[in-house]
Amino acid sequence: MDISRRIEAAMAAAIEGAQAGGPARLAHALNYAVVPGGARIRPTICLSVAMACGDDRPALADAAATALELIHCASLVHDDLPAFDNADFRRGKPTVHLAYSEPLAVLTGDSLIIAAFEALAQAVPEDRPADALRALALTRVLARHTGMPNGICAGQGWESESSVDLRAYHRSKTGALFMAATQMGAVAAGQEPEPWEELGARIGEAFQVADDLRDALYDAETLGKPVGQDAALARPSAVQELGVQGAIKRLRDILAGAIASIPSCQGEAQLAAMVQLYAQRMTPVAPVRA
Amino acid sequence: MDISRRIEAAMAAAIEGAQAGGPARLAHALNYAVVPGGARIRPTICLSVAMACGDDRPALADAAATALELIHCASLVHDDLPAFDNADFRRGKPTVHLAYSEPLAVLTGDSLIIAAFEALAQAVPEDRPADALRALALTRVLARHTGMPNGICAGQGWESESSVDLRAYHRSKTGALFMAATQMGAVAAGQEPEPWEELGARIGEAFQVADDLRDALYDAETLGKPVGQDAALARPSAVQELGVQGAIKRLRDILAGAIASIPSCQGEAQLAAMVQLYAQRMTPVAPVRA
Repeated sequence: MDISRRIEAAMAAAIEGAQAGGPARLAHALNYAVVPGGARIRPTICLSVAMACGDDRPALADAAATALELIHCASLVHDDLPAFDNADFRRGKPTVHLAYSEPLAVLTGDSLIIAAFEALAQAVPEDRPADALRALALTRVLARHTGMPNGICAGQGWESESSVDLRAYHRSKTGALFMAATQMGAVAAGQEPEPWEELGARIGEAFQVADDLRDALYDAETLGKPVGQDAALARPSAVQELGVQGAIKRLRDILAGAIASIPSCQGEAQLAAMVQLYAQRMTPVAPVRA
Repeated sequence: MDISRRIEAAMAAAIEGAQAGGPARLAHALNYAVVPGGARIRPTICLSVAMACGDDRPALADAAATALELIHCASLVHDDLPAFDNADFRRGKPTVHLAYSEPLAVLTGDSLIIAAFEALAQAVPEDRPADALRALALTRVLARHTGMPNGICAGQGWESESSVDLRAYHRSKTGALFMAATQMGAVAAGQEPEPWEELGARIGEAFQVADDLRDALYDAETLGKPVGQDAALARPSAVQELGVQGAIKRLRDILAGAIASIPSCQGEAQLAAMVQLYAQRMTPVAPVRA
């Protein structure tokens, strides 16, 4: 089964498990928040690293990929709330709080976070204590990059501080889940997480710069979400700091560093090719706004 | 160390871990949301059951108790949000969204949920694979009673449905974390969760009826939070269904059933005494509102 099918199958199973017999509107909202997905970049990176490391426990790798994407979708639902970005559209359709209600959007995010940790705990049969240690290691990596003091919640929390270090802010807000993605792929396949942190950090940095460029250069219809938000909300941005050309140059430097950082493993070449592919997709080619 | 000290020490360690180096206001808000605590009833029940079952892994029992209380506090912070109860006071002080901001209240809840699962994953050393299986079982019990389709998120989700079964609603909204409390105490001490579900369910039912009575009978100063909310928000309530005297009688019946349901174990008598003590505390003695 290819990576994309593995991800969709595992995501569908997690959502169906969370829906069965529960209140209907919240059950619908869970599915609405995760389907159709975006590029599923984090779980794709996770499974790519797991496969590069041998993927000896595919059920754990699938659970890791699912957990990452559930957390990512949860963060989007909460970030879109009126108290944060007050966004009307996401992935080309109304945001969860507009389509369902604000209470159901809060509960959707909460339920998806919980489903993420549940997916990891359900991936280990009772007679596999060694795998249980891996699942707990995956839980620790995911929690560290999701909550406080260094995860995506911390990243959002920095937006409420009067003084912010741009790199620390991006590292937790966007980078954290990419670091979790590479590390969890490695851990699911029985490897130590630490050597894989730099690859995730660099991919995350590249995505943040690419996102800043898209926010500054593209129109809302192309992106399927509001644009110009960084400037409108006075949020720190690489374009604001470096200008458009400077940001594009930084993006290329970061991606070259990402490829150089890949730890030695059996699937090293394929991984490098994957990062190269993302690099091409991320670099803006046709700005449609001034 | 007595139960209360164990809980506060474990809670303090979890919150300190979540604060270190993170954004200051969110870090403060995490502590504000959990200290000073309420009665810490769920972790007390959890540790009481663990001790009744021998408590052979105190670190796991402490983590289970902490995880329960972190989830409970998270649910209070999110329930108090303007989109839900829009509450101004909780435990005699301003709610988190009033004291900090609505975005920080959403993030506080999210961070506490994540810290709960992290606490369980951190309680097992690398050389204890058998304990890792217990920690995963604890994670599954906690997730089942917290998220969708049957946990406290589901309970809140039922409030967005046009037709609700009162018992199913209470069972998930309030009962779920009490079922988690008894089951997690047992699992932390190496026992199966199932025989402990009924005790938790009955204690949870009793607390819901007692809460309905307090909401109907007491004033805001006594409770430290707004009263008359069930009637004002047209929420289902035992008092609405049975009247005050009928609700008091149901409370007594439920608690008698709770004591009768305690599974055979070495600390059975102490557990029965604890439930009896809660029964006395819960039964209203001096209604101050008509």
